[in-house]
Amino acid sequence: MLDKVKKTIKRYDLVEVEDRIVVAVSGGPDSIVLLHALYSLREEFNLQLFVAHLNHNFRGIDAQMDAQYVANFCEAMNVICFVKSMDVPKYAKEQGLSSEEAGRVLRYKFFQEVVEKVGANKIAVAHNQNDQAETVLMRLLRGTGIQGLTAIHHGRGQIIRPLLDISRKEIEEYCLLHNLSPRIDETNLEPIYHRNKIRLELIPYIEEHYNPNIIESLAKTAEILKKDNEFIEIVGKDAYKQVMLQAREGCLEFSMEGINKLHIALQSRIFRLATEALVGKLEALEYKHMQSIMELIQKSETGKKILLPMGIIVKTSYNKVIFTTQEQEEETTFYYPLRENGHTKIEEVQGVIITKVIERDNIEAISRDKYIKYFDYDKIKQTLNVRNRKDGDRFWPLGLVGSKKLKDFFIDYKIEREKRNQIPLICDGEEIMWVVGFRISEKYKVTDETNKILSIQYNPPSDVE
Amino acid sequence: MLDKVKKTIKRYDLVEVEDRIVVAVSGGPDSIVLLHALYSLREEFNLQLFVAHLNHNFRGIDAQMDAQYVANFCEAMNVICFVKSMDVPKYAKEQGLSSEEAGRVLRYKFFQEVVEKVGANKIAVAHNQNDQAETVLMRLLRGTGIQGLTAIHHGRGQIIRPLLDISRKEIEEYCLLHNLSPRIDETNLEPIYHRNKIRLELIPYIEEHYNPNIIESLAKTAEILKKDNEFIEIVGKDAYKQVMLQAREGCLEFSMEGINKLHIALQSRIFRLATEALVGKLEALEYKHMQSIMELIQKSETGKKILLPMGIIVKTSYNKVIFTTQEQEEETTFYYPLRENGHTKIEEVQGVIITKVIERDNIEAISRDKYIKYFDYDKIKQTLNVRNRKDGDRFWPLGLVGSKKLKDFFIDYKIEREKRNQIPLICDGEEIMWVVGFRISEKYKVTDETNKILSIQYNPPSDVE
Repeated sequence: MLDKVKKTIKRYDLVEVEDRIVVAVSGGPDSIVLLHALYSLREEFNLQLFVAHLNHNFRGIDAQMDAQYVANFCEAMNVICFVKSMDVPKYAKEQGLSSEEAGRVLRYKFFQEVVEKVGANKIAVAHNQNDQAETVLMRLLRGTGIQGLTAIHHGRGQIIRPLLDISRKEIEEYCLLHNLSPRIDETNLEPIYHRNKIRLELIPYIEEHYNPNIIESLAKTAEILKKDNEFIEIVGKDAYKQVMLQAREGCLEFSMEGINKLHIALQSRIFRLATEALVGKLEALEYKHMQSIMELIQKSETGKKILLPMGIIVKTSYNKVIFTTQEQEEETTFYYPLRENGHTKIEEVQGVIITKVIERDNIEAISRDKYIKYFDYDKIKQTLNVRNRKDGDRFWPLGLVGSKKLKDFFIDYKIEREKRNQIPLICDGEEIMWVVGFRISEKYKVTDETNKILSIQYNPPSDVE
Repeated sequence: MLDKVKKTIKRYDLVEVEDRIVVAVSGGPDSIVLLHALYSLREEFNLQLFVAHLNHNFRGIDAQMDAQYVANFCEAMNVICFVKSMDVPKYAKEQGLSSEEAGRVLRYKFFQEVVEKVGANKIAVAHNQNDQAETVLMRLLRGTGIQGLTAIHHGRGQIIRPLLDISRKEIEEYCLLHNLSPRIDETNLEPIYHRNKIRLELIPYIEEHYNPNIIESLAKTAEILKKDNEFIEIVGKDAYKQVMLQAREGCLEFSMEGINKLHIALQSRIFRLATEALVGKLEALEYKHMQSIMELIQKSETGKKILLPMGIIVKTSYNKVIFTTQEQEEETTFYYPLRENGHTKIEEVQGVIITKVIERDNIEAISRDKYIKYFDYDKIKQTLNVRNRKDGDRFWPLGLVGSKKLKDFFIDYKIEREKRNQIPLICDGEEIMWVVGFRISEKYKVTDETNKILSIQYNPPSDVE
């Protein structure tokens, strides 16, 4: 087994001469064998070993005996051992994590502390080939994509896993051969947890009926998929940068044509990276969401929008694909002064305002378009501008007897809260002249006395609502 | 269900207007639903449908009833139906194929016949989402890599699979809804065959205990992996061409540096393509073989060689990686005339011959190197040349009383059959002067009477034997 471990170490460059390694030791067979194996190699590589053991406080007196066992084992080898006790159940409750996740978080936090204390450069953890296979199978059954299937890495950052090519059977044999009697975690023997159920029921069932070497097969598959995925991610990151047009806080713009030219495998990586940039999580989108983004882009229609989990919004605008969030859209504020005759683009909503002052007699036809309205030019007293809503806005809708809160107007029109910030308001100073797309103000309407007319047209980001 | 089929057809461009489609119909639920669905779409797409039914002669009277059922079903729809009976069991036996494989071969051959007869451009087959999931699971359990996991394609070449996103459950519901009563293949209900065992035992077990949507999950995973693999294969094909230095029949040479610079995911694709070019099969190499090729290349040592399944040989020579076959190496023949003073490269074995004529008195030191030998120049009467063995060669080894068959000489020296063709023979016309690396000829040895000496040095492709 030691030869196999050395081969793994060499193949993946896990250990270098003079490394200072913190070994994570629970006291179970895997971690005791890991410590023993690294200890056997310490002279060859001139290693400095340290041990870190965390008492998770899940199993009372048993856990204390684990700690004692690890301490004694280290003492016999003359290896410094750091033991810490943390209330994982309490932390899990506080943070709303599963006990597994909470354990992992606190464990790695503790390892990091030890690393800093002793000036180590690596952390060795004891995952083996069975863990690898179980993870792949577990994720496959859940239906994750390639990222999920690629499972555990031999080495990543400071973390190294020298036993990842060693099966549980080989670990047990090594224990017998070297007279090691590690502690057994009884909870691992109960098929209650999902992973334990796979380990204790599904894998033995498959071994018996389908493939006695399923552990090795799955580990190999994971290895191949890991490499493939790694490659696509590398190419994907380049592509992501290439098709990106602009990145603002909470808003990423990509070239639609650029994305459309890429292979779907790369498109999905770009969407994942965009998701990560927006909400900090690569995995926020499922397969079906990826598909709907791809369909949106394939159609190349402007002004389309889809709402995805975690408030992610993907929309198209002419030649752009825009990834943003609901939160971002709600926080949108904009203000642009308008000339009396001119085009003004509202970047935030990708719409355009066209203004024109016309003598009354020159008006040819009155448009009924909800995006073209006419106002009495001489009633405008202050700066003509376009902005979005703010607290306290009031508005006098055409035909009503007086003004009302803009908020109530939105409610009357059943305009969803997250859309309200996107609606342009044409204003005379602070006074709202037109809630674009909905209603103009009674105060600015064209009357028999009107001489000059201000015509305002709004071009929304698309002809499609 | 019909909407879903249309979506699949659209997404994967399976059907175009005016297509002429041969529908493969066994008479079971899948193929009857496929025919019924395409028939429902025939006007929308202006399709011409034809049916092909093969009687495999596995199930006697039942099979004849299947054929009758299909014929009647088609008649009711007024669709032309081609029925053929072939002795699949006999063919399987003759060709040494499993009955599943034999059935597939004959079936597609028959479909092809029908395609040509009616001038069709597509063949529709009835694989569904469950088949997809079962295939993935089956291959995963066997331990195939990503290519194995990517499973069935929606459309490839002439073949289209419009039902690939439809589950078996949806097919059964469709049958009920449209009052279809397809034939049931009883052999599909027996968990004897590997696939049936997965369908009838493993999947229901997983559905009950782990994931009720396992079929959909696996199908999605297959879809994602397929796209990823497709992308890597496209990039891999480009890389293959870029790192290739030379391609001769049965022998491919690549730049070692070129391959070493590539990501492992691409390296493995290149090895697969080389394998396909050599032995006609992409899948000849397993994971461990790929790994040993990668290790060979990583070390960048010249003159190394590994033997792989199907007689594939991978060897390194200076800056080259050479893929060839044992057969090819055995068939190697070469012949080069040698100048009296000069360098001659033997391309076939990547070795170099250096010749020099020296006055006896000018010889300084006699080398004991097995690759540097001295000959009596004046005994050479014909053309000096280097070649490899041919039938009938004889040789008089230094120190022996007479000549013997070269073949017997090789046997005495325990030189393996496949290596014999690689050994350079320095000759005077047809007469062998030196079996390079082994023994010179008694006839050409330097004696007291020698005046001029011909020194010959051989540089093998590496200093490593």
